[in-house]
Amino acid sequence: MRMDLPSYITGFVDGEGCFSVSFSMRSKMNFGIEVRPSFSVSQNQRNLAIIRDLHRYFECGAVRFSRRDQNYKYESRNITDLVTKIIPHFQRYPLLTSKKKDFDSFHAICRMIRQNLHLNRDGLRQIIELAYEMNESGKRKYSKQELLKHVAR
Amino acid sequence: MRMDLPSYITGFVDGEGCFSVSFSMRSKMNFGIEVRPSFSVSQNQRNLAIIRDLHRYFECGAVRFSRRDQNYKYESRNITDLVTKIIPHFQRYPLLTSKKKDFDSFHAICRMIRQNLHLNRDGLRQIIELAYEMNESGKRKYSKQELLKHVAR
Repeated sequence: MRMDLPSYITGFVDGEGCFSVSFSMRSKMNFGIEVRPSFSVSQNQRNLAIIRDLHRYFECGAVRFSRRDQNYKYESRNITDLVTKIIPHFQRYPLLTSKKKDFDSFHAICRMIRQNLHLNRDGLRQIIELAYEMNESGKRKYSKQELLKHVAR
Repeated sequence: MRMDLPSYITGFVDGEGCFSVSFSMRSKMNFGIEVRPSFSVSQNQRNLAIIRDLHRYFECGAVRFSRRDQNYKYESRNITDLVTKIIPHFQRYPLLTSKKKDFDSFHAICRMIRQNLHLNRDGLRQIIELAYEMNESGKRKYSKQELLKHVAR
């Protein structure tokens, strides 16, 4: 076997993976905003095997079925897992497409969350700015302005 | 650099690549049918760099811009290139998703074309049958029945 699985995984994720940071309104959180970073890969049922391979390889996260798009999704959302398992993989085996830019923002945001910087005004503001530069083609529930209004002094 | 480029490429192609065999009506060809195998990978302009990397890596094919979907496409269609450069890569670094099944049919068809089996009735019939098992979700200009009618005795 000549295949190097970690390099294959970076290639597959460069095509099919998603690094995202979403926000939801939670009155109990600081400034009423919850920050949720997520690394995920979705595939049709015929590719469930590779989804399970990713789960096994990264040793964290979960596989779930999404009724909405009828896909199986591997997803890792736990901040400790993201910082200690997911991010180090993509530092060793770097992405080669424009997804690298998303990964860099994702990495910066996760590091800030790990340091609890999302709990103070300037940190959260910076996270929102970084997150809204990512995945330009993606849909957002809230506009950046809406979120920043919550964090305004 | 720990990354193994060939393994990365198989991973990327497993997500984003396409092995296809299309047919067109050409009165000059045997049975009026031309068989065209193609290996391709399409990406948005922001990922033109990886498209050029593929071209450089496989040492064959071409990069073209498609106005229709505003994508850049790396494509290899020459049967000798397919058999001597593209197919050997995916034998050494095998695909892990359901695309492997498409690749296997593609490989069988290219081998048959290389042996000129597409120029006789039984060979062409077998190629049509194999090709219509590939890429189930893809669109086809002609139905299988329509093509087989041309090859009927």
